[in-house]
Amino acid sequence: MTQQPLTLAAQGSFFAGGKVIQADGTYRTENPMSHDGQTFHGDHAYVAYQIPANARRLPLVFLHGAGQSGQSGKTWESTPDGREGFGTLFLRRGYATYLLDQPRRGRAGNSTVADNAPVLPNDQFWFENFRMGIFPELFQDGQFPKDAASLDQFLRQITPNTGAYDLEVISDAVAAVFDRIGEGVLITHSQGGGPGWQTALKNPEKVKAVVSYEPGTEFVFPENEMPSVATPANAAANISLSQPISAERFALLTKMPIVIYYGDYISENNPHWASQRWIERIHVAEAFAECVNRHGGDARVIRLPEIGIRGNSHFAFAEMNNVAIADVLEKWLQEKWLK
Amino acid sequence: MTQQPLTLAAQGSFFAGGKVIQADGTYRTENPMSHDGQTFHGDHAYVAYQIPANARRLPLVFLHGAGQSGQSGKTWESTPDGREGFGTLFLRRGYATYLLDQPRRGRAGNSTVADNAPVLPNDQFWFENFRMGIFPELFQDGQFPKDAASLDQFLRQITPNTGAYDLEVISDAVAAVFDRIGEGVLITHSQGGGPGWQTALKNPEKVKAVVSYEPGTEFVFPENEMPSVATPANAAANISLSQPISAERFALLTKMPIVIYYGDYISENNPHWASQRWIERIHVAEAFAECVNRHGGDARVIRLPEIGIRGNSHFAFAEMNNVAIADVLEKWLQEKWLK
Repeated sequence: MTQQPLTLAAQGSFFAGGKVIQADGTYRTENPMSHDGQTFHGDHAYVAYQIPANARRLPLVFLHGAGQSGQSGKTWESTPDGREGFGTLFLRRGYATYLLDQPRRGRAGNSTVADNAPVLPNDQFWFENFRMGIFPELFQDGQFPKDAASLDQFLRQITPNTGAYDLEVISDAVAAVFDRIGEGVLITHSQGGGPGWQTALKNPEKVKAVVSYEPGTEFVFPENEMPSVATPANAAANISLSQPISAERFALLTKMPIVIYYGDYISENNPHWASQRWIERIHVAEAFAECVNRHGGDARVIRLPEIGIRGNSHFAFAEMNNVAIADVLEKWLQEKWLK
Repeated sequence: MTQQPLTLAAQGSFFAGGKVIQADGTYRTENPMSHDGQTFHGDHAYVAYQIPANARRLPLVFLHGAGQSGQSGKTWESTPDGREGFGTLFLRRGYATYLLDQPRRGRAGNSTVADNAPVLPNDQFWFENFRMGIFPELFQDGQFPKDAASLDQFLRQITPNTGAYDLEVISDAVAAVFDRIGEGVLITHSQGGGPGWQTALKNPEKVKAVVSYEPGTEFVFPENEMPSVATPANAAANISLSQPISAERFALLTKMPIVIYYGDYISENNPHWASQRWIERIHVAEAFAECVNRHGGDARVIRLPEIGIRGNSHFAFAEMNNVAIADVLEKWLQEKWLK
């Protein structure tokens, strides 16, 4: 594939947020192998940034997703079939990009709490949960590439938590990223959605918009307006989709445009557990958007098939049609004057 | 700091090497929460690459260092004080760069063996072991920046192993990186040195040179030529510096130029444990280089103070004088016709 060269004004990486803990006692240089009095830095986010020449006004801040074993900032880099991911695609479109590893994951691995995660084979679960197909068959009309090498690359994106997942720790660190870089658009995926809303609540002056690909958990609602959506498929897996916050805090989410995207293979009529889990999540997302709008905000849920884009799994932004998916996002950014 | 724009032909990331393990039994879509028959992908390296416009012939492949809690590819990105690290500096000089996270670290976190690492405060140990100063004082004439924010950024670079350190697993994955990208120069740091020699032994056709910053362990020697260097300070910490391989394999290391760099604050006369540990490592490195040369190779150990560059810790390539350190390396590459 011939590409135009890409001209950068700057690039680099840094850590944001986090804590320092200290063992009891006093450190002495004569006894360096004792932990007495020593400190430990953890719970920060890792941030890799690239700024194109003549950057647009607002940068894009990307927070990856997935649960107990999950994704890193890698998910926004190359696609599993080796093409440019959203990071580079939007750089080419003139946006500065900030690709995060959330606290306790990837290059931000130092956790102030230990997590003794066993090695648990789960590839087939993820394959189906992410709606790539019914194992071992990829959906024939799906946008995930059909070659074995791409699936191998995809499955290697999974990287473990190095400490317990913590909504507050993650959103504190992402809010600290915005403190450092200033105003920007937050783009979340999957499990990143929950920390994404919390980040917007913690730093509403800097988070100018939220774009959420397939959030599945931790939607927020005013405590007196919790959704009445039935979620039996998720409840059966002990997954809670929504949580209450004060009406006053919720109102902060009306100050920024919000868009939520879902891919294909999700319907009430498909009895497969993955479809059932995801349709429940869409229903909660729709209730969330309605609630934001009822309070005077601007939130929308878009099911990609309803705008004619079919075959996407949970990772629309990294599949064969990801340029078209980027076009949809860029059009939304422009409509909202977030250039 | 005003910089010229940086023009890239391409960038991206991928995984190389690794294994797939599978749980006993058969996966059934009706029972996705059972691990029966499910697979798990792990033990790969993560590789982020950038290729400048009009790239030189040989790319540079960077393998980070440090032990049980260690570094990731981040170490080659921005410096702790936020300037350009070796990755971007050499990109500006026309070299394609490949920045790795070794297997079981960072974005390559999935390990086929579990590692239940506790949270161990060790910042002060690292501070002294890396010869940044005697805690809490940085060396006054040192090249590490004196502001608190830089030290905070530096300490957050540490990220845990997510599986046991394994020389074979790491060198298998790095050798697989060279299989994928072709010929290149391998640049290692610290603990990466050991897997670096093994990578060169496993892929001697593709590894055209090895540059090693401050290797400290796992030097290789022909089994009949093990070094007689005394290493009591390391032995006291249960650190073994060298290991035997066959003379036939050792001879492969004579096919490529090798250079090893050490920073400052290392001398026989300094009784501090860090100085004592590092002088022993330099002595073993010098024995290694002599052995390579005795067998017809081209290896050299350079103590930076001996060429007039003073004040560097264990991380010369990321300190205030890192452009000068890059100049030294580039001159060496050019002398060896590795352009």
